[in-house]
Amino acid sequence: MSGTLYGIGVGPGDPELLTLKAARLLGRIAVVAYPAPLQGDSLARSIAAPHLTAVTDEIALRMPFDPEKRADDVYDSGAEAIAVHLAAGRDVAVLCEGDPFFFGSFVYLFARLSERFPVEVVPGVSSVMACAAVLGHPLTARDDALTIIPAPRPEDEIERLLEGSEAAAIMKLGRHLPKVVRVLERLGLTDKAVYIERAGQPGQRMRSLAEAAAEGAPYFAMILVHKRGKAWI
Amino acid sequence: MSGTLYGIGVGPGDPELLTLKAARLLGRIAVVAYPAPLQGDSLARSIAAPHLTAVTDEIALRMPFDPEKRADDVYDSGAEAIAVHLAAGRDVAVLCEGDPFFFGSFVYLFARLSERFPVEVVPGVSSVMACAAVLGHPLTARDDALTIIPAPRPEDEIERLLEGSEAAAIMKLGRHLPKVVRVLERLGLTDKAVYIERAGQPGQRMRSLAEAAAEGAPYFAMILVHKRGKAWI
Repeated sequence: MSGTLYGIGVGPGDPELLTLKAARLLGRIAVVAYPAPLQGDSLARSIAAPHLTAVTDEIALRMPFDPEKRADDVYDSGAEAIAVHLAAGRDVAVLCEGDPFFFGSFVYLFARLSERFPVEVVPGVSSVMACAAVLGHPLTARDDALTIIPAPRPEDEIERLLEGSEAAAIMKLGRHLPKVVRVLERLGLTDKAVYIERAGQPGQRMRSLAEAAAEGAPYFAMILVHKRGKAWI
Repeated sequence: MSGTLYGIGVGPGDPELLTLKAARLLGRIAVVAYPAPLQGDSLARSIAAPHLTAVTDEIALRMPFDPEKRADDVYDSGAEAIAVHLAAGRDVAVLCEGDPFFFGSFVYLFARLSERFPVEVVPGVSSVMACAAVLGHPLTARDDALTIIPAPRPEDEIERLLEGSEAAAIMKLGRHLPKVVRVLERLGLTDKAVYIERAGQPGQRMRSLAEAAAEGAPYFAMILVHKRGKAWI
């Protein structure tokens, strides 16, 4: 009997935004894997740390911090290290910031392992919902369409995606913020947009969009847009 | 000093998908409000029930089950009942299925109360992530755009929204399923679409899209689409 691969969403950063199910499973799991920088601590592991009371083996997927570069070799060797435990009948929990199936490194491990081993995914609170909560900015009501847009997309595609729906969350801003601000200005949406960085993480910071555009944004920054502005309903 | 209005996401249905923060706050709150059918139990309240150990007052927002009809009078009187407690200095927790700011009744109460009282929102696991987890269907990887589409939208708008992004979640299916299936067929996406109803709730059920289309779908049913099919990464 092989072990089960668990993809466990640990939420957006606040350790209290972990689910009861994640906490229960993490308390009995012996092998954990998680994304981490080349040097230093893993955010996902730090969120889960209070619950990791049964851990005997840890697999850190260490990758250069350039989230726009693919890291296939890291996922290949990480998947093989995980497969050794699964084949030996040991469950493995992959710790995922936010939700495992929403822009998570887990998707890359899932693609490599899900045909060979049983998989269970524990959904988590996503950064989109966490940003909305901190900003006091409802995402959707009525029959709004909401589009999640990664900021590395080309400028014309961001414009087309923003035009198409009532509400949007623009993620992974970093060096792409000036391009996104240009699009918002062209569409007359700057006063319907709010900005936040590292929501619920250490270093959470709210600034005006203008200030962020002038000073620069980290990768974990997000813009939420709603075309009805503050007329939520 | 007035009380604080808490919008508390209780997750998609599985009582274990509540966050630690929601569980902690619910354990000390004396006044709770929640949406409920005209007769019978509230789903949000039933999810939260194990944690409601300090409750003295309950406000049920009872509305006819037609989710496409607005229920302004129910929200008006509910907001006033909540305001009485807040003005007297008592905190009130509004229990919200999924996430409070994502198609929740909470948005309607927020619109009525947020300028008069302090508000804190506790984000929750949304049904979109819960459906993906149960189906084993990653939502996004790389720089995918994901569009959330309410099925009551007109057919041509659903088609345009689906065309525009790599991935989509189509919610609130009910009697709109045949229309959505027509659009998926026109766009050649039926074999890239998966269907589920009541994910994580009592009555969770997976069927093929063809079977659901032939037999009919409930309101709490969802279709997830990814244009890369099973080539997740």
